[in-house]
Amino acid sequence: MAKSNFEYVRDFEHETRCLPNTWIVVRIDGKGFHRFADLHDFVKPNDTRGLTLMARAAADVMFEFTDVIISFGHSDEFSFVFRKNTAVFNRRAEKLSSLVTSLFSSSYVFHWNDHFPDTKLRYPPAFDSRIVLYPTDENMKDYLSWRQADVHVNNLYNLSFWSLVLKGGLKPCEAELKLRGTLASDKNELLFQEFGINYNQEPPMFRKGTTLLRKSVDFLGKGKRTIVMPYYCDIIKKDFWDTHPELLKQGKAGSVEFHEGMEFFEIKKCS
Amino acid sequence: MAKSNFEYVRDFEHETRCLPNTWIVVRIDGKGFHRFADLHDFVKPNDTRGLTLMARAAADVMFEFTDVIISFGHSDEFSFVFRKNTAVFNRRAEKLSSLVTSLFSSSYVFHWNDHFPDTKLRYPPAFDSRIVLYPTDENMKDYLSWRQADVHVNNLYNLSFWSLVLKGGLKPCEAELKLRGTLASDKNELLFQEFGINYNQEPPMFRKGTTLLRKSVDFLGKGKRTIVMPYYCDIIKKDFWDTHPELLKQGKAGSVEFHEGMEFFEIKKCS
Amino acid sequence: MAKSNFEYVRDFEHETRCLPNTWIVVRIDGKGFHRFADLHDFVKPNDTRGLTLMARAAADVMFEFTDVIISFGHSDEFSFVFRKNTAVFNRRAEKLSSLVTSLFSSSYVFHWNDHFPDTKLRYPPAFDSRIVLYPTDENMKDYLSWRQADVHVNNLYNLSFWSLVLKGGLKPCEAELKLRGTLASDKNELLFQEFGINYNQEPPMFRKGTTLLRKSVDFLGKGKRTIVMPYYCDIIKKDFWDTHPELLKQGKAGSVEFHEGMEFFEIKKCS
Amino acid sequence: MAKSNFEYVRDFEHETRCLPNTWIVVRIDGKGFHRFADLHDFVKPNDTRGLTLMARAAADVMFEFTDVIISFGHSDEFSFVFRKNTAVFNRRAEKLSSLVTSLFSSSYVFHWNDHFPDTKLRYPPAFDSRIVLYPTDENMKDYLSWRQADVHVNNLYNLSFWSLVLKGGLKPCEAELKLRGTLASDKNELLFQEFGINYNQEPPMFRKGTTLLRKSVDFLGKGKRTIVMPYYCDIIKKDFWDTHPELLKQGKAGSVEFHEGMEFFEIKKCS
Repeated sequence: MAKSNFEYVRDFEHETRCLPNTWIVVRIDGKGFHRFADLHDFVKPNDTRGLTLMARAAADVMFEFTDVIISFGHSDEFSFVFRKNTAVFNRRAEKLSSLVTSLFSSSYVFHWNDHFPDTKLRYPPAFDSRIVLYPTDENMKDYLSWRQADVHVNNLYNLSFWSLVLKGGLKPCEAELKLRGTLASDKNELLFQEFGINYNQEPPMFRKGTTLLRKSVDFLGKGKRTIVMPYYCDIIKKDFWDTHPELLKQGKAGSVEFHEGMEFFEIKKCS
Repeated sequence: MAKSNFEYVRDFEHETRCLPNTWIVVRIDGKGFHRFADLHDFVKPNDTRGLTLMARAAADVMFEFTDVIISFGHSDEFSFVFRKNTAVFNRRAEKLSSLVTSLFSSSYVFHWNDHFPDTKLRYPPAFDSRIVLYPTDENMKDYLSWRQADVHVNNLYNLSFWSLVLKGGLKPCEAELKLRGTLASDKNELLFQEFGINYNQEPPMFRKGTTLLRKSVDFLGKGKRTIVMPYYCDIIKKDFWDTHPELLKQGKAGSVEFHEGMEFFEIKKCS
Repeated sequence: MAKSNFEYVRDFEHETRCLPNTWIVVRIDGKGFHRFADLHDFVKPNDTRGLTLMARAAADVMFEFTDVIISFGHSDEFSFVFRKNTAVFNRRAEKLSSLVTSLFSSSYVFHWNDHFPDTKLRYPPAFDSRIVLYPTDENMKDYLSWRQADVHVNNLYNLSFWSLVLKGGLKPCEAELKLRGTLASDKNELLFQEFGINYNQEPPMFRKGTTLLRKSVDFLGKGKRTIVMPYYCDIIKKDFWDTHPELLKQGKAGSVEFHEGMEFFEIKKCS
Repeated sequence: MAKSNFEYVRDFEHETRCLPNTWIVVRIDGKGFHRFADLHDFVKPNDTRGLTLMARAAADVMFEFTDVIISFGHSDEFSFVFRKNTAVFNRRAEKLSSLVTSLFSSSYVFHWNDHFPDTKLRYPPAFDSRIVLYPTDENMKDYLSWRQADVHVNNLYNLSFWSLVLKGGLKPCEAELKLRGTLASDKNELLFQEFGINYNQEPPMFRKGTTLLRKSVDFLGKGKRTIVMPYYCDIIKKDFWDTHPELLKQGKAGSVEFHEGMEFFEIKKCS
């Protein structure tokens, strides 16, 4: 049982640290979620329960990793942005990437029943992840803009497709054919003319994805608490970054005022 | 919403493929499991429910990744060995590592109630992971031997420690002091003299960890099915590899005969 | 001779691209140059011939790699800074690093006789190299400042040491002992008191290292030519970067006016 | 001049160690050698002086790196194989790769006049390099076989091409057209029929490339010395590895007997 004879195998391990002074993004992405959504009767083309569950799991990641200053998700993917000077786990790429993915996955299952009280989870889902570095603020903002532009393109297509299938009675292949080569303006027109849908009045969560920010809030004089707040707004325009200046300054969580009906996530206390 | 202006950010992504013709090991490890075990009243020093839940989650990984030919775990860690010529996900390191970790984590939560029917899961646990390459069969076997030798060392210590604390009435710091500098033989003697424990008669699962192998079994003439079987045996000695020759030959799952009371895992069917 | 049977070995090759939008620095460093300097009778503590030969080789690198906007060297090391948006060789790290090192090395030998006309080169010298990324202008400038601060510290020590040995008649170990724990001010004082040396009047090349910049010059109306010019100035202070604004703007080579006795390097034409 | 303010930039450096227990191959490759060969009047299609100079530079690398057990080259490329358990420079990839390339390059220039006494070197040549890992003996041997198979294919083509151009009077584009799509047998036939060349009687150095091995030789009783010997033989067949068993055993240099006219390289002594 000579332990020392085997310990040499540790030398085969390899550690990569993220370049200092760069933004670290971890993006997770559902594996086989078409099938998963079908099997669990997700509403097409957007299931609010599913999207809120994703946000719930993402919020858990933000409570665990306080250096994640913003996260953004839609459909079955979510991106987590660590501030560029984070020193958590010495910026070890594998540590950051695996822990984010693991926590997100276990949290997704953990909160399933709260979001799908009438649907039994059939099997444990899985998410892959990748880690990407962005050297400048501009690059990092463009990354998030890229993801939000993607939401728009996908959502407009999916809404048109499922309207044609579910309301228009087309077969999937027919709907696909009809949409091929159409521009955004064509799809807007089709939605309005054929289905009376004004795309711009669709729920912002569907059109803009979910942006999560860490905020400090005073609950009616009971003291400050840190929460994670969802926003369903444009994050491409400069306005967003001006409204939340703590993000680029890598400062403390911004303050928000409490109001009735406010939507937010808090960490589950375990004591 | 000019998507193309942002797509350049994809160029910042980076992909690493595992060196061909080498064994790929993914090892996951629980984060903060001391606290997790305390909070969920895990039996000290070994909790059969917790260990079996780990094995259950590991079996799910083996059902998803059929190129994992052997996995080995103990305590809050588990190692998965992909056969050296696997081509799954083009051997992309991030894909393999993140999906194994994610599936393991969500499976752990998914199966929690089956293993801890009387204990509510208080929060979603997380596991980190690392990926390591081993060029030769010898190196890969030495890796597994290293992990099993570790089980022995840790388990003998923990059993001694908790016997002193729970049965001997020592405070943790006293127990620690008493064990400092003792040899394996000292601890064996202490267990036997003071607590009447014959270490070699402790459950093999505690002393040897859990080894999972993919096997083919004929269920009483109802046809062959692929199962994942747990073994609690020595995997350091040559004998183990002789008994399961398919492992190093990277061949098909070996056959086992069905018998009453046989312990095994099967995948949950989702149809 | 079936070629195709062997071509699979190409899959073992691995390519790393430098993160986009980051400064790329390649630093080369002489291997065993203490012995090399001794064997070729380099003047202590600074040999102008050796330093100029280093600069000559570095200039060749700058003529080959027009995306190197600044290089800085002293003693047996030289650093080359590629502009942050360079696309040369698709930013492949191995290509950039190896070609810079190789060209520098062969150029050093190629020009040896011009700089050491009376000293036969006894064996081919070697330089190692490393590649480092810096995400911001500030980081890149701090890198160069680090190297220049190093020149100062080393040169003051070396001048003191060799003065004590060559002029003061101390043995090397005595000189070392005498300098142990001294501050910069102590060494300045010692040089002045014992050897009449005013450190600040030492040649700038020795005190500040050699900075090479690409410049455009009009040779007395015979048309613009691109040259590489050596500077022996402070590159730590803001002033340097203000004087050469093209560096951070990643713009075209700045212009300089020709004057008699001007020191510069031009590429050897091969036609 | 506060040095410590800048030293943080060292954290941006990154070090990769080669996986243990794997063969390490460094392959260098001339940059722009078509032009270099033209400008220095290399004989077409093979210039013995150029090939021998390459071997001379490669031998210098083998004298410096005693863990390189075999090297193989042809045309303007050379591969160096470090034994799989080498610990030189802690297996740091950048160190190994850069020093091999640098030494090769400076040695090439250093020995130029010995091999091209009548041709002045016009400019310093450059070589790029890459580092590749091979986990098994089989993979490493296949790597070398791949390179030697390449020599055959290229040499047969080049000999045919230059025979057509230099002896047959064809223009380069005509020769290219004539050879397009031809098999090896076609080219053999063409060489024999049109130019009376029996390909198999061409010099082995041209057909098989140059293999360098480290050997121990007793110079007529004057004591053992370590030399580097060139071989121009088939290294694809098993026979080669049987004849030089020290290679795969990673043992000491094999012994050879001295004989008159024996071709070999010795290191230049510098004392």
